[in-house]
Amino acid sequence: MPNKARANLETLYRIFTVPETPDSTLGAVDQAITDNVAGFLQTHIVAIEQSLEQIEAGFSSCAIPEEPTYVSEYTEFVKANLVAQSVHTAAPGFVGHMTSALPYFMLPLARLMTALNQNVVKVETSKAFTPMERQVLAMIHHLVYRFPKEFYSEWIHNSQAALGAVCSGGTIANTTALWVARNRLFAPDGVFRGIAQEGLARGLRHRGIDGIALLVSERGHYSLGKAADLLGIGRDHLIKVKTAENNRINMQALREECRRLQGENIRPLALVGIAGTTETGNVDPLEEMADFAEELGCYFHVDAAWGGPTLFSDSHRRLLNGIDRADSVTIDAHKQLYVPMGAGMVVFKDPTAVSAIEHHAAYILRHGSKDLGSHTLEGSRPGMALLIHAGLSIIGRKGYEILIDLGIQRARTFAELIRQHPNFELTSEPELNILTYRYCPKTVQQKLAEVSPEEKARINAILDQICLLLQKYQREAGKTFVSRTRLQMSRYKEEITVLRSVLANPLTTDEILASVLTEQCEIVRKTEIQALLAQIDPYPIQ
Amino acid sequence: MPNKARANLETLYRIFTVPETPDSTLGAVDQAITDNVAGFLQTHIVAIEQSLEQIEAGFSSCAIPEEPTYVSEYTEFVKANLVAQSVHTAAPGFVGHMTSALPYFMLPLARLMTALNQNVVKVETSKAFTPMERQVLAMIHHLVYRFPKEFYSEWIHNSQAALGAVCSGGTIANTTALWVARNRLFAPDGVFRGIAQEGLARGLRHRGIDGIALLVSERGHYSLGKAADLLGIGRDHLIKVKTAENNRINMQALREECRRLQGENIRPLALVGIAGTTETGNVDPLEEMADFAEELGCYFHVDAAWGGPTLFSDSHRRLLNGIDRADSVTIDAHKQLYVPMGAGMVVFKDPTAVSAIEHHAAYILRHGSKDLGSHTLEGSRPGMALLIHAGLSIIGRKGYEILIDLGIQRARTFAELIRQHPNFELTSEPELNILTYRYCPKTVQQKLAEVSPEEKARINAILDQICLLLQKYQREAGKTFVSRTRLQMSRYKEEITVLRSVLANPLTTDEILASVLTEQCEIVRKTEIQALLAQIDPYPIQ
Repeated sequence: MPNKARANLETLYRIFTVPETPDSTLGAVDQAITDNVAGFLQTHIVAIEQSLEQIEAGFSSCAIPEEPTYVSEYTEFVKANLVAQSVHTAAPGFVGHMTSALPYFMLPLARLMTALNQNVVKVETSKAFTPMERQVLAMIHHLVYRFPKEFYSEWIHNSQAALGAVCSGGTIANTTALWVARNRLFAPDGVFRGIAQEGLARGLRHRGIDGIALLVSERGHYSLGKAADLLGIGRDHLIKVKTAENNRINMQALREECRRLQGENIRPLALVGIAGTTETGNVDPLEEMADFAEELGCYFHVDAAWGGPTLFSDSHRRLLNGIDRADSVTIDAHKQLYVPMGAGMVVFKDPTAVSAIEHHAAYILRHGSKDLGSHTLEGSRPGMALLIHAGLSIIGRKGYEILIDLGIQRARTFAELIRQHPNFELTSEPELNILTYRYCPKTVQQKLAEVSPEEKARINAILDQICLLLQKYQREAGKTFVSRTRLQMSRYKEEITVLRSVLANPLTTDEILASVLTEQCEIVRKTEIQALLAQIDPYPIQ
Repeated sequence: MPNKARANLETLYRIFTVPETPDSTLGAVDQAITDNVAGFLQTHIVAIEQSLEQIEAGFSSCAIPEEPTYVSEYTEFVKANLVAQSVHTAAPGFVGHMTSALPYFMLPLARLMTALNQNVVKVETSKAFTPMERQVLAMIHHLVYRFPKEFYSEWIHNSQAALGAVCSGGTIANTTALWVARNRLFAPDGVFRGIAQEGLARGLRHRGIDGIALLVSERGHYSLGKAADLLGIGRDHLIKVKTAENNRINMQALREECRRLQGENIRPLALVGIAGTTETGNVDPLEEMADFAEELGCYFHVDAAWGGPTLFSDSHRRLLNGIDRADSVTIDAHKQLYVPMGAGMVVFKDPTAVSAIEHHAAYILRHGSKDLGSHTLEGSRPGMALLIHAGLSIIGRKGYEILIDLGIQRARTFAELIRQHPNFELTSEPELNILTYRYCPKTVQQKLAEVSPEEKARINAILDQICLLLQKYQREAGKTFVSRTRLQMSRYKEEITVLRSVLANPLTTDEILASVLTEQCEIVRKTEIQALLAQIDPYPIQ
């Protein structure tokens, strides 16, 4: 073998084999990274503020490096340019999005998952991960539907069925559910060989309808719009139904929309109920929706990506009453099951439902195999189910109950703080552990109740600007973080900009919540915001 | 605070905070798992053979444990029931699927990714991971399209565009590409507001066509069938074009299919070229397909999920000539970029192409933001781009070149071993690093060339059974592993069952390949297989 070829091979062996001595490069790198993360977690709360443009400068070359780089050198780069510039989503003061702290055991188990590098698409590359994933789905199915034990004995490991699918997140979960719904509506029927085979246009022709529609409240997650586009339904037919009090779907409006669709020869494909809206954390009246879906003879899906784990709580479970009547339910594991990013799930009441989207291939996913890939939207997938399994096993039902109860309690405390505070307005009551509010002094709130619609609009527009700046400056300061969104409230004609707080991190304390408001009041003292406030004169501001 | 509540809170703190002392539970668990993986990797080659049914017994309860479990106890469970029963996909003798060994630095970096738990859907939860992911896409885009530097300066971090998308795998990548293709074909046009808005049925009516079709060779990946179903096209209109020599698409047949579709008023939505077929590793004539797509005025997608990294090799890059004329290209990072499971990519020639699938939401993905989630099929996603970035940086172009060259060289060596062996028949020539073969003694091969079609069919059916048993027994023995599939060859009328070998693990040696064949010959001596062989009498078997 020529010298160069031998050297190349040796390089490869070095890269692909784990060094044997404990004080190896691997150990050193691993330690350096671990130390750094620990250091980072201790000293920063959000991220060191650098503008995105500054950060981009470190990631601006389009050329793949020609020569290899030392791992140690790369690690230094990562520490300086990536770790120091990422967002500390696990910080107790990061209460703006749905990413929270992770239980400590998730890290070594995630590492194990990576090291085993199983591919759960097929048993040949996943083995025990296949029954484990099926068990996870059965556990979640049981959490939602509470079927008797015999049901699960029959279906849990049945190759002809699946109680659901583990996937990368809620978007794929919702899309999978609506894909199943669509394909069941246009199932094979006489000469029509089904939509999977013949396509949507022929399906519509066969059923003699001009279109199909999805109905969800205006608080529905944006993934439903993507699904409507992807599945060929069209966003026009994602009907965003008005909400009633507390951001729940207005059943009257829902009925009217369905009547209108009927007049246009558009058939409701599915009603989608929400258990924990992304923006306000409210829960639709699931029982009433289930009744109406039954009346229509239409599919009923519940997007419980956020709120599903409320089922763990003896005190709050009733909020989700009716969820067991859904044909399918989405629950994200990387949200309130405290699993790292990249883990969603959908469960189906009928274990044969997924046959509507079943597919096979000669080299894998053969008929009768237990390969999980034969009924998932994704193909090759990692063994994330291990981390869900670990959470369910180690934290247990009671552990999750504590987490859920704590979050809801904390949201109520925060809501009370906001209500009591002279400078803030609560814009949505927390039903679960999410709430929205805005900077709007009580004096301005009083005026808003009295003035003309035009004056209301003018004041709200200024409050919107304040909200936007407030959120921006707070994010940049990096001490605490809330997000913002736009919301339609019944008491104002126009949409308003509000701050949004998600209270799922068990390390968040009431003191931190108080400090969020204090910091916001300090930010408001900035000249720029003061100038805006002056425009709301003559209402005195505290 | 009541005692119970305090105890609950303390439990939560224990679970969610990293213990400070180094000899902590975390360290112990981490070490136990690391040791165990190392031990597992050393002593087993595939997995300890237990039947799936036996393994299922350990994962049979549908009840979520009521009480928490100790981490140490759970770790013991995982070691015994999961680690010992998983498939050692990184073993050098595991040459049957596309999962291979991982460079050692992937483990600590994957751990870092998990610890930071960024969500790249939006900058607010990903910060530096956003520019990093954009850089990774620019690097892959440049690898494929080689546009001048100025192009990348303009587009790499441009919020109005995206050079592609990082996703969970090739299936999502292919689906994203075809979603873009579909939405561009039915773009807004006069009163028609586009398919995303109005749906597929109205789109077809607007264009005055009866359907749209995808054309790919019969070696196309099964994800294309899923995409055809999902996008409402229907599997009937996924046209699987016959292959010519060496499993490449037959251009004549492709032209004929297009003519036939035209007669039915079906418009070709996209031609899909394959760079590295899943089953045989062959590459379609991409230049010719690009010419034809141009002639048709139709979208051209290349599925280079497997073969894309061949572009790293100066010697073999030419096999993919024409790939730079594709509108989009899929490349999987968890295949030949040696990144852990869960990382795919699609790049688009036109950086504004993704605007066809763009979407927004009030609380994130606002217009003008750099949030990556505004044009991805998935929503929340982990920072897997870090691992791709690490591979490209640490291994470098030349490192990947060595890996590619080595795999192709090894496949040729294996092919030669098979050709020389009296008991095996090579059923597809390796063009890249995948080949297929079967147990079929040379004497039987000679007879097969002479006998009647009926006798051919009879013999092939018996050889199929042998192939099936051979693969099963080898997998169960757990020393080495090849996969199997069904293949249509020009020299036989019927599809045959073949063994499939993927040679991407740099730790696989020529000696291991020789031992794969030796083991197969030993397995054939089993009574069950001998009985089958006797039925191919009077052809003497060695």
